[in-house]
Amino acid sequence: MSVTAPRGFRATGVACGIKGSGALDLALVASDHPCTAAAVFTTNQIQAASIRYNQTMLARRRAGFRAVVINSGNANACTGPKGLLDVYNVTELAGSLLGFPPDTILMMSTGVIGVPLPVEKIRAGLMRAVSTLSEEGGEAAARAILTTDTYPKMAIRRLSIRGVRVTIGGMAKGAGMVHPDMATMLALITTDAEIDADRLKALLRSAVDASFHRITIDGDQSTNDTVMILANGAAGVAVDEDSMVLFEEALTDLCVEMAKAIVRDGEGATKLVEIRVQGARTSEEARRIACHIARSLLVKTAFYGGDPNWGRILAAAGAAGVPLNADALSLWVQHENGAPLLLFDRGSPAFYTEEEARRIFQAPFLRVLLDLGLGEEEDWVWTCDLSHDYVSINSSYRT
Amino acid sequence: MSVTAPRGFRATGVACGIKGSGALDLALVASDHPCTAAAVFTTNQIQAASIRYNQTMLARRRAGFRAVVINSGNANACTGPKGLLDVYNVTELAGSLLGFPPDTILMMSTGVIGVPLPVEKIRAGLMRAVSTLSEEGGEAAARAILTTDTYPKMAIRRLSIRGVRVTIGGMAKGAGMVHPDMATMLALITTDAEIDADRLKALLRSAVDASFHRITIDGDQSTNDTVMILANGAAGVAVDEDSMVLFEEALTDLCVEMAKAIVRDGEGATKLVEIRVQGARTSEEARRIACHIARSLLVKTAFYGGDPNWGRILAAAGAAGVPLNADALSLWVQHENGAPLLLFDRGSPAFYTEEEARRIFQAPFLRVLLDLGLGEEEDWVWTCDLSHDYVSINSSYRT
Repeated sequence: MSVTAPRGFRATGVACGIKGSGALDLALVASDHPCTAAAVFTTNQIQAASIRYNQTMLARRRAGFRAVVINSGNANACTGPKGLLDVYNVTELAGSLLGFPPDTILMMSTGVIGVPLPVEKIRAGLMRAVSTLSEEGGEAAARAILTTDTYPKMAIRRLSIRGVRVTIGGMAKGAGMVHPDMATMLALITTDAEIDADRLKALLRSAVDASFHRITIDGDQSTNDTVMILANGAAGVAVDEDSMVLFEEALTDLCVEMAKAIVRDGEGATKLVEIRVQGARTSEEARRIACHIARSLLVKTAFYGGDPNWGRILAAAGAAGVPLNADALSLWVQHENGAPLLLFDRGSPAFYTEEEARRIFQAPFLRVLLDLGLGEEEDWVWTCDLSHDYVSINSSYRT
Repeated sequence: MSVTAPRGFRATGVACGIKGSGALDLALVASDHPCTAAAVFTTNQIQAASIRYNQTMLARRRAGFRAVVINSGNANACTGPKGLLDVYNVTELAGSLLGFPPDTILMMSTGVIGVPLPVEKIRAGLMRAVSTLSEEGGEAAARAILTTDTYPKMAIRRLSIRGVRVTIGGMAKGAGMVHPDMATMLALITTDAEIDADRLKALLRSAVDASFHRITIDGDQSTNDTVMILANGAAGVAVDEDSMVLFEEALTDLCVEMAKAIVRDGEGATKLVEIRVQGARTSEEARRIACHIARSLLVKTAFYGGDPNWGRILAAAGAAGVPLNADALSLWVQHENGAPLLLFDRGSPAFYTEEEARRIFQAPFLRVLLDLGLGEEEDWVWTCDLSHDYVSINSSYRT
């Protein structure tokens, strides 16, 4: 269902030949009613043409958005002035086929960088897409945005606002180049609640900060990352001051589900790892250390091997550029529902058996808990391990 | 020859059982004359016991150093107060066996973190080491400091100062956890020139900045990294103001040779890559971008696959946190002795054939040249690719 779960949204996914494999590569999501929209974009200095286009459109109008075109297989990044022109051409065509002004159409792209967008293929694909839009098209759309993902990521949350049922639906793709601050992923979220543009922006920022901004697969940051939300008001109830918190919780929860799904399906990933740093002077320092641990290749390969080589975790923490007191550090690991196992106790190795540690490191979900002993603040990120398959996938991505 | 090439140095390497494999794991390098010494250490906040010990000794005395004990297979890091006590015990024993005060003995360790140093094994090993010290022992010592390296790194430079022949010899180990600012490697350099402690420190800093500080294998930074130099004056000539530059050139050249050898032998590495960023506002920004590209897993796996997926290089540059103008960027690649091939020309893809690009990306040496179009400054780093073997080696390092 994904983005078509809320009322008044239709979607589809078609294969237009951008991907040589013949897989679905063009998604179209349209709303029967004008939408408010908000988005969070990559902070990469090199941004795809569609990012620049969306930023312009979102600045130009505060409401009235009608559809989003998403292609996979081609990032339309580093494509020069032609790249931006191509986005205008595609959105204009989509608008005319759907009967809406071109500036009510948004666009996202994901795939190979530096290759011109095959506009003719997308043009043919769009014609078929418009004729196959349906309320059942959410899953096809979710499949059409994938690149090296192995399964579509979809999530739905329902809540009641003043007695009226409101739905939030989302689809996402990730797999490689995923890192905090909008690294590489796309997510499109729809809701039938009515939400004004400013409130929608605030809600999205808050939800993204607690979800997509906390995941890292390989530390790379994409030129294309976008999380976008459309609110079409079809449910007939508005999110106001009183219902903000309720909606924010549901939206955050949906984003966390999709973010974790992205990490679980990280390129070659075999396990999901939560890195939690507590006892920090500030949450920023805690986050910085958590990210540094999550990015360490030596840590990630040890996770892959199920090898309790925890010294690498401390070494990575020490290299994060945050002043530490080595004698104040403690480290635990924990698997789902298991008790934390103390490995390092205020500066010295703790007493535990290799077998206990190995059992936890080999679990499909693993929590690493590092106490800095410096303060009261904490923060965390989710990441995955680094496997042979990551290398296989990325050493010949284009071929 | 390595560290025994300069006059008055003897060395050896023995197997004392720290490594389960029975490989050489204990090196001893001794000087027949008192030495001045200088060292550059890791900037990791978590430092091995031997680093703390060496810092204390180098601060305590300005000359008179006589020997360095180096063990591999155990990092003696994150080992608590016992770790430091172990270093004092080992160096005291080495001193008494050699007939020198304990504070004239330095120590380095490399290997697994968080495991207590097997002092009894080292004690037995030291007795054998002292009795096998010789002027031919440089290679055995160079082998005894290796961990996952596949070959020893040794280099020699000779120069003439006021008609007297002076020799500089070095040995190094690297392989994993190698990154600028003293990530993971050990290097010990010896010279028979006479150099006062302050001058030696300045010479070493300058040489390291142009060599070991420019290499990155996996972006990890070790708890143990050390580059150390001993000068024993056995050649009978001093490096003075006039001969500083000559000596510095030779020392730098020797360090560059060893640094490149470390990268070439990076864990699982199949090629050496030079990342050069020019046209930057400052050399710091150029270096930051070069490092970010060198650390990108997507870039490193593309190098491994010989895949000219250059968009990833630009994406990594854009994520370095340095403001860029995407339309001013140009990118070339080049193999040894080949002409640079333009891939991206001030914001747009350039005209080249896939075959030309692929031939360069598949070469064993590859230079990436990125022009930011923002200024006149430049900087560079050396790195390697990321292969299946890196994952294999590091997913089960301890087993």
